Amino acid sequence: MDLSALPTPCALVDEARLDHNLDRMAARMCRLGVALRPHVKTAKSLPVAERQRALGAAGITVSTLKEAEQFFAAGFDDILYAVGIVPSKLPQVRALRERGCRLKVIVDSLEGAQAVAAAGHPFEVLIEIDTDGHRAGVKPEEARLLDIGRALHAGGAVLAGVMTHAGASYELHDPEALAAMAEQERALCVRAAERLRAAGLPCPIVSVGSTPTALSARSLQGVTEVRAGVYIFHDLVMLNVGVCGADEIALSVLTSVIGHQAEKGWLLVDAGWMAMSRDRGTQAQPVDYGYGALCDEEGGLIDGLVMVGANQEHGIVGWRDGRADPTLAQRFPLGTRLRVLPNHACATAAAFADYRVLGRDGTIDTWPRFGGW
Amino acid sequence: MDLSALPTPCALVDEARLDHNLDRMAARMCRLGVALRPHVKTAKSLPVAERQRALGAAGITVSTLKEAEQFFAAGFDDILYAVGIVPSKLPQVRALRERGCRLKVIVDSLEGAQAVAAAGHPFEVLIEIDTDGHRAGVKPEEARLLDIGRALHAGGAVLAGVMTHAGASYELHDPEALAAMAEQERALCVRAAERLRAAGLPCPIVSVGSTPTALSARSLQGVTEVRAGVYIFHDLVMLNVGVCGADEIALSVLTSVIGHQAEKGWLLVDAGWMAMSRDRGTQAQPVDYGYGALCDEEGGLIDGLVMVGANQEHGIVGWRDGRADPTLAQRFPLGTRLRVLPNHACATAAAFADYRVLGRDGTIDTWPRFGGW
Repeated sequence: MDLSALPTPCALVDEARLDHNLDRMAARMCRLGVALRPHVKTAKSLPVAERQRALGAAGITVSTLKEAEQFFAAGFDDILYAVGIVPSKLPQVRALRERGCRLKVIVDSLEGAQAVAAAGHPFEVLIEIDTDGHRAGVKPEEARLLDIGRALHAGGAVLAGVMTHAGASYELHDPEALAAMAEQERALCVRAAERLRAAGLPCPIVSVGSTPTALSARSLQGVTEVRAGVYIFHDLVMLNVGVCGADEIALSVLTSVIGHQAEKGWLLVDAGWMAMSRDRGTQAQPVDYGYGALCDEEGGLIDGLVMVGANQEHGIVGWRDGRADPTLAQRFPLGTRLRVLPNHACATAAAFADYRVLGRDGTIDTWPRFGGW
Repeated sequence: MDLSALPTPCALVDEARLDHNLDRMAARMCRLGVALRPHVKTAKSLPVAERQRALGAAGITVSTLKEAEQFFAAGFDDILYAVGIVPSKLPQVRALRERGCRLKVIVDSLEGAQAVAAAGHPFEVLIEIDTDGHRAGVKPEEARLLDIGRALHAGGAVLAGVMTHAGASYELHDPEALAAMAEQERALCVRAAERLRAAGLPCPIVSVGSTPTALSARSLQGVTEVRAGVYIFHDLVMLNVGVCGADEIALSVLTSVIGHQAEKGWLLVDAGWMAMSRDRGTQAQPVDYGYGALCDEEGGLIDGLVMVGANQEHGIVGWRDGRADPTLAQRFPLGTRLRVLPNHACATAAAFADYRVLGRDGTIDTWPRFGGW
């Protein structure tokens, strides 16, 4: 495989690692007896979703209505929009549904439920459950859970189920704590479903998920589907969480050395924060990788070498322990190509219009991705 | 002006503020007797650069060769690529030059100078000078400055001058310190030019600049041109630096309230880090605005209300002082539209394919922008 013709910076995907990650999650969900509804917000790329579908994915999850539009146009018709719906977006949701897209929305308030129920279309709606306190959702024991369910069911909407996302799992890095968080996510979401059913309300879907909990759950009893996104590529945050190895990170940024500050022990590279993103998700984790971890052009990790600083189109690379190593300039002369593993694959991928996919057979393919709303 | 038809999130530009910012910088450079070569990396949008040209801008600065390609195609032919050139990019630079683009490149090493000089084309080259220790460049007193100059001049290249960027100015917030940094940037860059000239080498261009130093310099004696980018929009980092007021920030993100956690005093909005960026540039500044400062739909600042947290498509909004205000939910019900001022305009703008420009006459125009490499 000859990467020398690729312009830098560019986003590389290691196909073998991607497929390994897809297989691993699909097999795990199969063993746990639940469907997988992958979140396409990480890659925003059709070839990735097609591979997930080929492995049995039951529909997809999206973070924007643009994702819903794009993936529906490509033949995906079972879609969950996993961001609280605001009434101003209902006309676009309805238009998609009237074209045949089984697009589901979520609410976590009585006013939201009433607005959807009164909108004159049988929208399929899930109630968002708060199982970890990190963001949105109704707590499973709150009285308003049933009020929301009734407002949907008695109004014009279809109460399709409950969903939750234990985003707080990103803050953990101990297998037992992760398994406990996965169990908390499962148990509290199932509890919400049981309360709705006990009140005579339908609740066919019980949807949970995050990459850390999906890879840590020991039982998913009562759950019907799992959503996860970043597992396709993994990243340094997931490495710190402990749910992947460095050799399972499938996304990197190819960059060129554009200069040195030898006495400071700095390499300057042409991937700055525009390419890596400003995500510093490893800052509060056990190992802080700065803006990314450096690998050689072939993808071999250079242990301890990280992007210590970033400007828009400049990355500053040095040893993580802060030592000023003047030999870096000789070891990595002007024009040397390196790969940078990202802190957060969703954020890094977003800078790029396409992926360069390094195939098992030595070829380099190009897969488009999209951004925006 | 009716913003209710705009989808959220979207990037708003206040035309009157933009023009005020453009006028202010153009007038300042005129008074200081230097040319302005605006950095187009902030907006990456032709209508903005056209306004800068109409106000007398002498060429443009770019951060990527894609910017050079796009702006050259639109009639801008005097372009400085202000990121250290790597030999693998010279063929693209040469192709642009052979099509008539007066594209200039920069080097800060002898090996870089030798590579450019030996590339068989009279590339116009500036030597990057390190005037603040923050990133790249040759220090003005280093012996290799002359070696680099000679390698260019005696080789096949055109030694066009020197350039520097005092990016360390972003870390200041005192007018006297800013003026001192501007003087340091000026004096050290001029000193490098004088050393080259004293050695019999040409140095027609002396290019300095950053928004903070450009707006703080008291003299630019010996400088021929100033580069600045973010001044077009300004942002909360520049507000903290002290070179703009909140009412001069021309870029904001329009967002909708999508939910509440009333007991925590949280609003959830549909602008997360994908829209705002992960830039936390105000974190180490006098006032930490989280991921952005909230304004009402008309743009009036809601003092103290900030985005305290961000996920990909969710922003969490609360009071900066951390108090849990249960009345926020009543004050800003589901569907309320708000604007968010960004920490860093260059990073926030990068998420969007276009700007919605709020004109003085009450109209809303759309200006395209581009990203990528």
